[in-house]
Amino acid sequence: MADEFVLMRRVQFAETDMAGVMHFSNYFRWMEEIEHAWMRGLGMSVVQPHAADTVSWPRVTVSCEYDAPARFEDEIEMRLLVTDLTEKSMTYEVTFWRDASRIARGRTKAVCCKMEQGQFTSIPIPPSIRKLLGTALQ
Amino acid sequence: MADEFVLMRRVQFAETDMAGVMHFSNYFRWMEEIEHAWMRGLGMSVVQPHAADTVSWPRVTVSCEYDAPARFEDEIEMRLLVTDLTEKSMTYEVTFWRDASRIARGRTKAVCCKMEQGQFTSIPIPPSIRKLLGTALQ
Amino acid sequence: MADEFVLMRRVQFAETDMAGVMHFSNYFRWMEEIEHAWMRGLGMSVVQPHAADTVSWPRVTVSCEYDAPARFEDEIEMRLLVTDLTEKSMTYEVTFWRDASRIARGRTKAVCCKMEQGQFTSIPIPPSIRKLLGTALQ
Amino acid sequence: MADEFVLMRRVQFAETDMAGVMHFSNYFRWMEEIEHAWMRGLGMSVVQPHAADTVSWPRVTVSCEYDAPARFEDEIEMRLLVTDLTEKSMTYEVTFWRDASRIARGRTKAVCCKMEQGQFTSIPIPPSIRKLLGTALQ
Repeated sequence: MADEFVLMRRVQFAETDMAGVMHFSNYFRWMEEIEHAWMRGLGMSVVQPHAADTVSWPRVTVSCEYDAPARFEDEIEMRLLVTDLTEKSMTYEVTFWRDASRIARGRTKAVCCKMEQGQFTSIPIPPSIRKLLGTALQ
Repeated sequence: MADEFVLMRRVQFAETDMAGVMHFSNYFRWMEEIEHAWMRGLGMSVVQPHAADTVSWPRVTVSCEYDAPARFEDEIEMRLLVTDLTEKSMTYEVTFWRDASRIARGRTKAVCCKMEQGQFTSIPIPPSIRKLLGTALQ
Repeated sequence: MADEFVLMRRVQFAETDMAGVMHFSNYFRWMEEIEHAWMRGLGMSVVQPHAADTVSWPRVTVSCEYDAPARFEDEIEMRLLVTDLTEKSMTYEVTFWRDASRIARGRTKAVCCKMEQGQFTSIPIPPSIRKLLGTALQ
Repeated sequence: MADEFVLMRRVQFAETDMAGVMHFSNYFRWMEEIEHAWMRGLGMSVVQPHAADTVSWPRVTVSCEYDAPARFEDEIEMRLLVTDLTEKSMTYEVTFWRDASRIARGRTKAVCCKMEQGQFTSIPIPPSIRKLLGTALQ
């Protein structure tokens, strides 16, 4: 069974808006933060030299559903779960929890790319990276 | 037939990331900017005193699909189209264009709420507001 | 002698720009984050109900000098030192360190205000708050 | 006599914070936006290929003084004035106005650099760029 990766994060003042809650766009920044923390834990960086090329993961589709607002200084638990891994792409879900309540749920589909001269070209996920990611799906 | 609302916007330096393109989370800020510009054009503000209550539009679900990156100083055309209006909610789509190419497409479902003491309670869209929004659906 | 308050923080992807380094404006967000973490450690929140009023600390002047860039995934140590406390204001300095190198130094002067109906009025720092802050100056 | 460069900008929702006003860090993003708009008007981009090198302008010191808050949907006028031009650096001031009231004043000192392999090295301002900037000082 797949394990979830967990990260705690506190809502910062600059992340709130005049409605007194965390601005909805910041959930996407948080989703990226937990993705990168999870990748670091696997021993890789999201932007990493791989042989001759730099491998990066631009987003193809992202979405988020909001159940309840997050407020300044709330401690939020994020949980990341990889839900799909294809030849060239990875999809994961992040749920956001305040205590026992789920306050939001997001999804990201990212495609493995090499970056050259500022251009992205999709490539099959390199075996060494696939091996690391695969452990998250077992 | 419904009219699209159109807004031009240039990619700013602080909106780019180290991959040399606009960070994917910023498309959601742009979608909110065109929503508010459109509402101003209808003669209302997104945060507006309505009789005794302040009416606001927290997001329920948002999503975005990315076809091609936007780069620093690119002039992007956004087009907003209201796709659904229910008793309490509004759904709209925003497409992002660079010249004749669509580079991204996002959707937002927002629910009409009154804000009191920092709490949001969903309410039927007030008739005066519905009348304004409805013109966008005809 | 005054103690410095210390906080580690990692540079996130969304905080970088197309020059490949942390965008200069984010240092000010970080300065606010360490200020709030420090205040939480003293047992107070930066936005806190104080008797009848909500006390807040709007900024009067801020500045930052940059010695070297911070890059994605760098672990940066911030050190906060209160340098002045007047009847109504507080000034502090934050230095940013990567290993043994100082990469930036910022200053913030904030004034104690009560917030009422969205208006800020400066007030003498309440004794209970001054007592907490004062420990940082000894 | 030097001319000021002027730019209007409206405060966006995502730029506000829970205190109901524009977050203080965003003034620095705005200062950069007017700088780049001004440079575009002179026929140059802030990140520009210059002969073999890419010329960029990392910040050395920045500061801002706040006189009054900016609120959601406020239309703010920014005025940029170059105050110093040395062999390698440029200093400019930006004032922020709501109607006839100055609400903030910022300063930026940026140094001309070539960017190679993600490293910045300061260089004398190339003659072709100096010529354009110089017109702002006459």
